[in-house]
Amino acid sequence: MKQQVRIGLLGIGTVGQAVARALIERHDVLSRAAGTSLVLQRAAVRDLARPRSLAVERLTADPAAVASADDVDLVIELVGGEEPARTLIASALERARPVVTANKRVLAWHGPQLAELAARKGVELRYEAAVGGGIPLIAPLTDDLAANRVLELRAIINGTCNYVLTRMASGERLEDALAKAQQAGYAEADPRDDVEAVDAGDKLCILLRLAFGASCTPAQLHRQGIRGLDPRDLAYGRELGYVLKLLAVARRTEAGVEARVHPAFVPLEHPLARVDGAYNAVHVVGDLCGPVMFSGLGAGGDATASAVLADVVHVARRLALGDPVPPPRENGPEPRLLPMSEVRTRCYFRLSVDDEPGVFAQITRVLAEHRIGLASVIQREPGKHGAAEVVLLTYEAPEAALATAEEQLARLSSTRAVLARIRVEAPQ
Amino acid sequence: MKQQVRIGLLGIGTVGQAVARALIERHDVLSRAAGTSLVLQRAAVRDLARPRSLAVERLTADPAAVASADDVDLVIELVGGEEPARTLIASALERARPVVTANKRVLAWHGPQLAELAARKGVELRYEAAVGGGIPLIAPLTDDLAANRVLELRAIINGTCNYVLTRMASGERLEDALAKAQQAGYAEADPRDDVEAVDAGDKLCILLRLAFGASCTPAQLHRQGIRGLDPRDLAYGRELGYVLKLLAVARRTEAGVEARVHPAFVPLEHPLARVDGAYNAVHVVGDLCGPVMFSGLGAGGDATASAVLADVVHVARRLALGDPVPPPRENGPEPRLLPMSEVRTRCYFRLSVDDEPGVFAQITRVLAEHRIGLASVIQREPGKHGAAEVVLLTYEAPEAALATAEEQLARLSSTRAVLARIRVEAPQ
Repeated sequence: MKQQVRIGLLGIGTVGQAVARALIERHDVLSRAAGTSLVLQRAAVRDLARPRSLAVERLTADPAAVASADDVDLVIELVGGEEPARTLIASALERARPVVTANKRVLAWHGPQLAELAARKGVELRYEAAVGGGIPLIAPLTDDLAANRVLELRAIINGTCNYVLTRMASGERLEDALAKAQQAGYAEADPRDDVEAVDAGDKLCILLRLAFGASCTPAQLHRQGIRGLDPRDLAYGRELGYVLKLLAVARRTEAGVEARVHPAFVPLEHPLARVDGAYNAVHVVGDLCGPVMFSGLGAGGDATASAVLADVVHVARRLALGDPVPPPRENGPEPRLLPMSEVRTRCYFRLSVDDEPGVFAQITRVLAEHRIGLASVIQREPGKHGAAEVVLLTYEAPEAALATAEEQLARLSSTRAVLARIRVEAPQ
Repeated sequence: MKQQVRIGLLGIGTVGQAVARALIERHDVLSRAAGTSLVLQRAAVRDLARPRSLAVERLTADPAAVASADDVDLVIELVGGEEPARTLIASALERARPVVTANKRVLAWHGPQLAELAARKGVELRYEAAVGGGIPLIAPLTDDLAANRVLELRAIINGTCNYVLTRMASGERLEDALAKAQQAGYAEADPRDDVEAVDAGDKLCILLRLAFGASCTPAQLHRQGIRGLDPRDLAYGRELGYVLKLLAVARRTEAGVEARVHPAFVPLEHPLARVDGAYNAVHVVGDLCGPVMFSGLGAGGDATASAVLADVVHVARRLALGDPVPPPRENGPEPRLLPMSEVRTRCYFRLSVDDEPGVFAQITRVLAEHRIGLASVIQREPGKHGAAEVVLLTYEAPEAALATAEEQLARLSSTRAVLARIRVEAPQ
């Protein structure tokens, strides 16, 4: 029985500070859970000169030295971003040090290779904090749903976008909502990764592997962010009984597994519709368990530290007991990723059209040509420039048909512009 | 590496059949997850003569023989109820056989003793299915929140009551809603354990141990069921912004840990308010992770089998690898259970009173004497017999004061009856 487990911490930003503080302040709780004393042995910070309240023994500005230090039993990587984080994780694993990380970017792009390296070295690589912050997700998906074939997964996994969309639902413009998110600390100064769904795409990749055994990189996903969304569409959606969310969707179909991130209308009565503000939620349908949802704070120092420390306790417990790391689970056959053109969804269109006879006949003819059924229509009396606004809600159709229909609708003589096309999810 | 793990299944009711079917039909998925072949070796049924479609090798009517069979590596107990289930579990553990069970009754009353026996024998006793059916709960609470002090836990963990209360919210009487629940298969022919909150109390006991380290038996909980509830109260509650749920509540206060099951008004905007029908949900607030919620199907053969099989896979994997069972985690100091009289809640009262001057002054005097603040009042014009209905919503006060106030309100000369007193929860 190891008397102590010595931790090397890489990165002391918001999450790193929360982790360091917890390791010091709740040493007893954590050590009791781990069955061994957890010692914050070394930490690497960006700027040594900056004063900090943390009493870490050996602070350094050299993360590579911490990752490979002889007196470190476990490495926590909270540097973030692809490099040097990936190299740091790999070098710790190479030296047979288990690694706990919150780094979705590295895992999305290099997860399988790093997992393979960890397995080869007989150590663990854990990343509960990489998706959904403080919400228990990775272990529940891996272990608790092991008996299921996961049929569908839909997730709100970007708090920034959800905060922005929640404000837009009250009529605020995207730019204003984003500025508020930045003021409130929910969005970074450069929010592109969030707004363009890069972050959500990375996280979906990780979930896809766990829940569907599909190995893919973010480059293989269809990914569309929230830029260009108009509060008018959220208002029309509401009228039709839907709320707009940035959804990460993975779904098993006979033809393959869908994997996509995009804004989507969700029925008001679905639990995901009520996940507001900076909250995250993952809704999973298993073929045995049925629908299950996990929700909570998807970001923030303490919430993310909670997940990091759960992994640390798990690894430390194993180190203390000297238990070997079990071999990785065998996956089933690799599923085919469905190309976006084959994905079937319902769609919402908003068009600006001339207010003249025959317009509606033209529109419906285009839809009929592509065998797209029409479920609901809203048409308002024209505004000042003689343009009328038409909102269409279709039945399910393949993406290819919907995209072609969009182009053809835009080219109709009576169409001034296709102002929006937004997918509609009608989950279980 | 063990080539196979032989399973002995006790009890082939709804859940047992789903488990047996899955063990046979999804043998490959389960065996891949477990890293070893899972074989349903023996099963004990109540009535051997009854025809069944399951091809189990050796069926017997003697569960004790299965629990102690030499050719069984792992016992699944799905007999239910206290005895003989407890004895069967104990005898399997005594022979160093790991046990997976869904038996909340046995765990609530004998969990610590059985866990101690399992630890002494170096085998696992797992019970993910005992609370919340197919919702991953036990492992997330034990492992994923390990770094947290759990501050509050509120749960909807009886699907029957939630189904009944959901129907009552639309104006249906309790008796009618209960009959519907029975027709729909959500309530048993004898629904007393559900309606009287015995079932929810058992489950709360299990959650209390995991989340608060409080060892208690159901006898130590305050437990009140849904009998006597009137749809009028649900309607008034709605008017005040609340939904009525049967809640299991555990809360850390400076004076100790509260543990109680009773009907409670929950604010409409709280996620628990939207958990309808036969769904279950557990809402936990940790001091690091913040609020987290898990929801899904709390009952049903397949959903419960999903949880049972997750445990089976976990245990079989360990058996296959020959890994030792880690010693149980040390708990922190045992918290004090707060007596119900000291618990502070808000309260809803509905009174039938004479419609005459001074009535309201009498009522408010009683509340003021007990230092109970008044938050909202609804008074309707009197009905045919000259009786007026008064609804009061108080601020937080100790249960002892609220109970005494109730008695004194009932004795006022102008009071015809105190028709309802229902606690109000205002969670994070």
